[in-house]
Amino acid sequence: MTTVNHEHVPAAARRIAGHVLRTPVIEVSPGLWLKLELLQHTGSFKVRGAFNRMLSAGELPGSGVIAASGGNHGLAVAFAARALGVRAEIFVPEVTSPVKVAGLRALGAHITQTGAFYSDAADAAAKRAVETGALAVHAYEQAEVVAGQGTTGLELVEQTGGVDTVLVAVGGGGFAAGITLGTAAAAAAAGAGPADAAGSSAGSGAGGPRIVCVEPERIPTLHAALRAGEPVQVEVGGVAADALGASKLGGLAFEVLSGPRVESVLVTDEAIVSARRTLWERHRVAAEHAGAAAYAALLSGVYRPAPGERVAVVVCGSNTDPATLTTA
Amino acid sequence: MTTVNHEHVPAAARRIAGHVLRTPVIEVSPGLWLKLELLQHTGSFKVRGAFNRMLSAGELPGSGVIAASGGNHGLAVAFAARALGVRAEIFVPEVTSPVKVAGLRALGAHITQTGAFYSDAADAAAKRAVETGALAVHAYEQAEVVAGQGTTGLELVEQTGGVDTVLVAVGGGGFAAGITLGTAAAAAAAGAGPADAAGSSAGSGAGGPRIVCVEPERIPTLHAALRAGEPVQVEVGGVAADALGASKLGGLAFEVLSGPRVESVLVTDEAIVSARRTLWERHRVAAEHAGAAAYAALLSGVYRPAPGERVAVVVCGSNTDPATLTTA
Repeated sequence: MTTVNHEHVPAAARRIAGHVLRTPVIEVSPGLWLKLELLQHTGSFKVRGAFNRMLSAGELPGSGVIAASGGNHGLAVAFAARALGVRAEIFVPEVTSPVKVAGLRALGAHITQTGAFYSDAADAAAKRAVETGALAVHAYEQAEVVAGQGTTGLELVEQTGGVDTVLVAVGGGGFAAGITLGTAAAAAAAGAGPADAAGSSAGSGAGGPRIVCVEPERIPTLHAALRAGEPVQVEVGGVAADALGASKLGGLAFEVLSGPRVESVLVTDEAIVSARRTLWERHRVAAEHAGAAAYAALLSGVYRPAPGERVAVVVCGSNTDPATLTTA
Repeated sequence: MTTVNHEHVPAAARRIAGHVLRTPVIEVSPGLWLKLELLQHTGSFKVRGAFNRMLSAGELPGSGVIAASGGNHGLAVAFAARALGVRAEIFVPEVTSPVKVAGLRALGAHITQTGAFYSDAADAAAKRAVETGALAVHAYEQAEVVAGQGTTGLELVEQTGGVDTVLVAVGGGGFAAGITLGTAAAAAAAGAGPADAAGSSAGSGAGGPRIVCVEPERIPTLHAALRAGEPVQVEVGGVAADALGASKLGGLAFEVLSGPRVESVLVTDEAIVSARRTLWERHRVAAEHAGAAAYAALLSGVYRPAPGERVAVVVCGSNTDPATLTTA
């Protein structure tokens, strides 16, 4: 495991520009922005990290890239590989739905369904990568991936003119860690203070907004890690498990998210369902459950901004059955 | 009928700022922007015109405002009235679905269901406005409404840095006419040429991008008007009739849309359905059928941009059952 720091984020932004969308923000009420990262290619932020990992590798091997994921990460790796003209092999567990497999195939990926659990597919993918020399792209435990996700944070500071607080959902933690670093980089660039004492250290830095990390009560990877002093296994369940279903926080994420500026809060599944419906009914934003988790913290009052506080909520994914927007 | 010209649009923009969202654009491929007006309050552009009409009236009467519409215009008038703290009376035909009536009630509007057809409800609304002195807000046949809708055009020029072509859907024509004027105003402000020879005339002006007006084949109000040399009645049908269901182009709209820079094209219902599905699958934009009509012209090849042409497509409405995004 290498470390990652805020200086990696602007470099990632330069690298992936033109490959990813600069997703919009909307100011839905004075001082409250939604960062619509769910409008990103493939419907989630994951392409940012996938592109940065691949474009950081120099020439990609003839055997292409490899990943294990039947969800947003898999779609992102398949999309980025197609864009860069390389082969993508995606490993998914046998239980993966035909719809998800078809989605990956539509992006040109080669699919291997193996094992009962995600961890089986991940093990098989790792073994295969060693055999073929393909570049492995992890969902959150690689510095290039975290830095790529962090470009979302850099963007949102530029687009809003700066905020006091960012609310973001946590699964494996790569996105939240990236945003912590990306907002620090923006603060450093704006001269708001030294974002990080030493550019080569792994800290998140003191500069930049408060990062409120939001997790479903039923998948508290960060919450449990902060209590235990290290990432620990948690049980995974609830409505957002398809996209926030990591059973343990990433080590890179823990380095950053156990630092200053970061808060951890939990929301109920009921709050997530309600927030998702409200995002649709009030703002016509069609989010998946995981994508609505950060907004749920605000809507349910788990996080209460002070008067005048400038808040950005990252709505991070839209890979959902739209038929359930008004019913579940 | 008063006339409307491009100078009314920047004035409208100043008037309604803070009441409406500056909706985002996304550049989905180089030189192709989607203007996401469907993320506007109440899910369509209609609030722009409603606010501009109300805020232009000086002090609003104690009897409030009145409109006839069971659709996007009704929602917009109800929303604007609530925001400005005045009473809204909305007239809808008896056939209006309970869901739509509930949506209007949720915004605090007083609903009168009367008559078999929209025209009956409109007649009753007009009579009632005379009795009570309420301010009537028409869906497209008022200069303030057209100028308000036109602020979308002004915005998109600012946000994209200027385009060669704008594709926009046409029903009564108020939105397309407004965008024609709004883009002319932006061009005039940028010194790109005299947008209009005489500020007080009703012409759309020579300056500004090409405006491609897109209509469903089954509701060709503009197409028929341009052929006949004046607005004429057309039959109304097809998938987009709930939002583009005017049976005759507005007179104000005809003045503007029969001028320079404007083209009229037709798309099939099949092309609209396909475009709506593609907007969801490729861009995670959840549009109503009318909202997808402009994109349909591009996707079906009815309008083919030249190499290097900079194109903006206005996605104008999202008041749809999301369950149908992947099925109809």
